Amino acid sequence: MMAASGALMALPRTAAAAAPANWDWARREIEKRHDESIKRIQTWIHTPSIAAENRNYPAGAELTAELFREAGFQGVTQVPTDGKPGVFGYIDAGAPRTAGLYFMYDVKQFDPAEWSSPPLEAALVDKPGLGKCIVGRGAVNQKGPEGTFLAALHAIRGAGRKLPVNLVMVAEGEEEIGSPHFGQIVRRPDILAALKKCTSVYMPSASQDPPNGTVEITLGAKGIIELELVSTGAKWGRGPDKDVHSSLKAMLDSPAWHLVMALNTLVADGGNTPAIEGIFEHVRPLSDHEKAMLAKQAGEPGAEAVMKKALGVKRFINDLEFRQALERLASQPTVNIEGLVAGYTGPGGKTILPGRAVAKLDLRLVPNMTAAEAEAKLKAHLAKHGFGDIEVNVTGGYDPTETAEDSSLIRATKAVYGRAGVEIDVGPRSAGSWPGYIFTGDPLRLPAGHFGLGHGSGAHAPNEYYVVESANPKVAGIDGAALSHVQFLHELATIK
Amino acid sequence: MMAASGALMALPRTAAAAAPANWDWARREIEKRHDESIKRIQTWIHTPSIAAENRNYPAGAELTAELFREAGFQGVTQVPTDGKPGVFGYIDAGAPRTAGLYFMYDVKQFDPAEWSSPPLEAALVDKPGLGKCIVGRGAVNQKGPEGTFLAALHAIRGAGRKLPVNLVMVAEGEEEIGSPHFGQIVRRPDILAALKKCTSVYMPSASQDPPNGTVEITLGAKGIIELELVSTGAKWGRGPDKDVHSSLKAMLDSPAWHLVMALNTLVADGGNTPAIEGIFEHVRPLSDHEKAMLAKQAGEPGAEAVMKKALGVKRFINDLEFRQALERLASQPTVNIEGLVAGYTGPGGKTILPGRAVAKLDLRLVPNMTAAEAEAKLKAHLAKHGFGDIEVNVTGGYDPTETAEDSSLIRATKAVYGRAGVEIDVGPRSAGSWPGYIFTGDPLRLPAGHFGLGHGSGAHAPNEYYVVESANPKVAGIDGAALSHVQFLHELATIK
Repeated sequence: MMAASGALMALPRTAAAAAPANWDWARREIEKRHDESIKRIQTWIHTPSIAAENRNYPAGAELTAELFREAGFQGVTQVPTDGKPGVFGYIDAGAPRTAGLYFMYDVKQFDPAEWSSPPLEAALVDKPGLGKCIVGRGAVNQKGPEGTFLAALHAIRGAGRKLPVNLVMVAEGEEEIGSPHFGQIVRRPDILAALKKCTSVYMPSASQDPPNGTVEITLGAKGIIELELVSTGAKWGRGPDKDVHSSLKAMLDSPAWHLVMALNTLVADGGNTPAIEGIFEHVRPLSDHEKAMLAKQAGEPGAEAVMKKALGVKRFINDLEFRQALERLASQPTVNIEGLVAGYTGPGGKTILPGRAVAKLDLRLVPNMTAAEAEAKLKAHLAKHGFGDIEVNVTGGYDPTETAEDSSLIRATKAVYGRAGVEIDVGPRSAGSWPGYIFTGDPLRLPAGHFGLGHGSGAHAPNEYYVVESANPKVAGIDGAALSHVQFLHELATIK
Repeated sequence: MMAASGALMALPRTAAAAAPANWDWARREIEKRHDESIKRIQTWIHTPSIAAENRNYPAGAELTAELFREAGFQGVTQVPTDGKPGVFGYIDAGAPRTAGLYFMYDVKQFDPAEWSSPPLEAALVDKPGLGKCIVGRGAVNQKGPEGTFLAALHAIRGAGRKLPVNLVMVAEGEEEIGSPHFGQIVRRPDILAALKKCTSVYMPSASQDPPNGTVEITLGAKGIIELELVSTGAKWGRGPDKDVHSSLKAMLDSPAWHLVMALNTLVADGGNTPAIEGIFEHVRPLSDHEKAMLAKQAGEPGAEAVMKKALGVKRFINDLEFRQALERLASQPTVNIEGLVAGYTGPGGKTILPGRAVAKLDLRLVPNMTAAEAEAKLKAHLAKHGFGDIEVNVTGGYDPTETAEDSSLIRATKAVYGRAGVEIDVGPRSAGSWPGYIFTGDPLRLPAGHFGLGHGSGAHAPNEYYVVESANPKVAGIDGAALSHVQFLHELATIK
């Protein structure tokens, strides 16, 4: 399917290495297409695909495929899975090297009542200190940065230039539910073969933080499993299999208490340390080098205050110092309650004994844990403690992912950011999760990460935004971010 | 306000004791008014007052007042409270004795989607083995039985007969949220003075159980407090004060885990025994006589199987025998989870760490506990165990209530049921709760209970019903139940 092999691969590297040092051509073309680039992102936001709500499938995949075709991708097809479809495409530029791209076209759930402008309208809003922003669900996670990458491709073609690398694109529509079928996309023989030609895989992101425009490069990400624990009288064989009058508690077992007691065994230390048996078995402590990176981050003036204010917190776990809290964030597995649902949830009370109770959890994983291991240990723990009847419904999960600091991907990232004059923080591991392990693990074992100037915030929260015209000269708007992608593609083509 | 005193009270008791032994006059008049009686209950059901939803106030009170006036009550007025209004009225029949009545005009919340006929339509539905039933919210709890009592009054007046007792009526519209302001109604000086003239207070009920038509007389009821436990980052001073990304669990405390751990301290024995410190201090064990009553109930052939089937359970707590389970039901305080609400409650998951978590609880109380004591001990327990920041929002509560088996009320109840030829079970205590303590406690210290033939079921559940034309000769329909009320009023007038 991909022609970027054989004779073409034999071309001398110096051909590609003759990258332009002057980017005026790209800047001009990007600026010419500024409005078109914004419009593309807005159009994408208008059609939110949400796997948890079965919303806009396959419409979201169809629109994504169309955006890929318009940006020059060839052989664009939907990839059926047991869940929502993926989208695959490639660009054979006749270049010696091939870069992999990972996109997601789904977005997080949202409640319009919590937003100051309609989340699907993708309104352009002036935000003090930031500039003109697209406000909408998916603005920064990830349609804004992804649309910016597509803008870079449009600019290269519009300027009559040749892509410096071939591209392989894999996109999925289930990232927000833990990518349960992404493996089916990547492991399809033709797609796997295409990815094997890549030197690395990356995801466009808006990596800058105001006010200084600092970018953080993370050398990996935690893994995750997301799941529901469901306690029912029917499965337990105790208590009612439906809601009954609450006075009967005196003679009947309660599936809701059963769930509470099961939950209570999963954590220690005030809910802060996982107590699932054996869960720490493969946890690898931070290296001195990783600790040093975190100490540097902790030492940034004002960083702690900014973070606490943004999160609405007064203190960290156990009143830890910032450095210790960052170490914990990077190195510790967690058991988190995303939600609790049982019985009567409306206003006031209702005198019932519920027949069913549900806890929604996520477990974050660090090297060298795996998602399969965490699920197995959770189930074994529950069974051993007398809660084997509680259903463990895992909806998705990732292994942790890691990429070496001396890989071509990270070196290229540092080079482009460095030439842009932005300050770089290197962190050992993002606490958030993405399915990078699909690329960094067997059989591909590729470097995988994120790249992109620009800024946005509010992923998973109301009023998510992405800066398109920056009021801060240290932070790129959509045009500066698109330029960084043009530069990065050339860097990937030439880096030693 | 009430004239049933002075000279009238001095009339010889034998005058009232000359009660008719032949009830044909009442039966005829009741049957003549059969359709009108059904229509009255249906009309009442069409206007559901639900305090938790602030629905139909004062409309429900106005309608109730109108129904009282039509049935012959005098001086009918709404009684303002800090919550929903009560309704007061009386009938001065010039009789030597006065009986008190307790009505509620509110109903439990409902979800129409769960019903087989619209819950406010009060449709007449033929139920196999039962007969023609009104199906609707409030059908048995308590508009059906209360409407049947009003039908008895209409029949007495329609037949040109004189009421054998004076009546004092107190009704409230907040029973289903724990009667938080009922004390304000009963303790209003003129109402309290009227109640002080009563020999007892009762609530109409549909006390028969198919298939044998057995009635249960309970000599009291458990008390209750209903409350929300609310854990927030803001009050705790730890964790976020809003929902944040779940990856931050590694460095932030979780109000949801805080709640789970607090809940876990409230119970022992798999959730079945309250572990609130000192909660058993005033719990009075069952007497031998009470145990004997329960042993008799447990020994009824088929009773255990019928109950387990109705509740959808396979076994009782700790696999107790039926007799032991009934003893537990009558004698043990409970801590029940009515509902849990935290964070994301929709389909699938959402990677958040919620800033707020709520548990809805009810605690059932036995003699000699009080509602105020239970609330104070719960709060002290939480504070002592490090959960003093968790809000305890009590929405309502009752002390336990008890009435002596040799009181005139219970003896009259036994006498009327006995003459109707129905089998009588006497139980020490209902596990459900009603605000009888307002009458049995200080300052009134009156016998208080329930009376009425007839059958219905599904209080607090979908498809609540009340039998109006019984297919089972051992169970009264609405006419037989109305006749039992006519007979009971005469019995109260004459019992020694």
